[in-house]
Amino acid sequence: METVTLATPVLRKNDELAAENRAWFAARGWTVVNMMSAPGAGKTTLLEKTLPRLAGRRRCAVIEGDLQTDLDASRIRAVGVAAHQINVNSCHLDARMVGEAARGLEMEAPDLLFIENIGNLVCPAAYDLGEGWRVTVFSAAEGADKPRKYPRMFHQSDAVVLNKIDLAPYCDVSIAELRESVRMVSPRAEIFEVSSRTGDGLEAWVEWVAAREAR
Amino acid sequence: METVTLATPVLRKNDELAAENRAWFAARGWTVVNMMSAPGAGKTTLLEKTLPRLAGRRRCAVIEGDLQTDLDASRIRAVGVAAHQINVNSCHLDARMVGEAARGLEMEAPDLLFIENIGNLVCPAAYDLGEGWRVTVFSAAEGADKPRKYPRMFHQSDAVVLNKIDLAPYCDVSIAELRESVRMVSPRAEIFEVSSRTGDGLEAWVEWVAAREAR
Repeated sequence: METVTLATPVLRKNDELAAENRAWFAARGWTVVNMMSAPGAGKTTLLEKTLPRLAGRRRCAVIEGDLQTDLDASRIRAVGVAAHQINVNSCHLDARMVGEAARGLEMEAPDLLFIENIGNLVCPAAYDLGEGWRVTVFSAAEGADKPRKYPRMFHQSDAVVLNKIDLAPYCDVSIAELRESVRMVSPRAEIFEVSSRTGDGLEAWVEWVAAREAR
Repeated sequence: METVTLATPVLRKNDELAAENRAWFAARGWTVVNMMSAPGAGKTTLLEKTLPRLAGRRRCAVIEGDLQTDLDASRIRAVGVAAHQINVNSCHLDARMVGEAARGLEMEAPDLLFIENIGNLVCPAAYDLGEGWRVTVFSAAEGADKPRKYPRMFHQSDAVVLNKIDLAPYCDVSIAELRESVRMVSPRAEIFEVSSRTGDGLEAWVEWVAAREAR
């Protein structure tokens, strides 16, 4: 196993800014959830389905990270939730970007902030954003072996949402094998089986996220 | 648009090593194809289906890049093709890794070398490996908007393989819209519509790759 280490000063500086974010969020009582996944795993669609179900229980806001376009922020605003789009030529969000974006949402006074990270199953795992909770969203269409091949993000996550489970029969993916693959690298994460498209399994995920507290 | 620039010395050094690789490949007459995609787009399955169809026409070998496991190299060897697995704690392959791996395959004397990059739709696009041809593999299940959201890799590719097109009806993805999204960021790439699972569309892709020459 060869190791390429990220420049330590970059990560150290990020950790400092993440600690500042965490204090800033704590002072305001914001629960912050960092949503990570590969491109196209369905983070935005999951949020589109989740946010209306949280209405009246939590006051939500979303930070959207993308290389290009504000398509995702527009989709979030279309369900009546404040969204701040970050366009950045980077493979991950970092604590500085999130700290600035959070200040842009302060007037919304959310108590539950979702951060939708850049679609990338590798790099975002290395960057603490100051969040309280980490969630990996994974599309069943990506294949049951992928958690074992990209273990770090799963290992660090408090919850893993197995999304697009309705596609599993059409791509020869066994959900049991996929769960086992997640368990191998992430023994303690909550696992939710969801189809954002059909609505299957959304309630258990929504209840979990609704119950998260600031930390 | 905020820009985070990769450390210039790192990329400059990589470009030097990529040029060395290119000369090394040219001296041996190897055609080299860099296969890039998000995790789970189906690069390995596409190769499993492509390699037997090239038998008798091209002498193939494969470099497999993964964070963990040698699952992919095992799958390639199972179809009778030499494979060299790189396990690296990095979000992309670089020219040094590929140069070393290529030397490990020299005795196989391939005339067509596939490099299966780390599953990541962002970082690999920044790293020249010394390849002659770049191919982006994209799963229809990732959604029609993604080429616009992750434009760089598509923009640089000689060919884009739209894979898993059999899943499109089950995830509300329009192939016409997906093609248009690719065209917006990559006006000249060859576009292939394929299902590695059903075999649909494989022939046109195989003919294209069989006809690639060293460059």
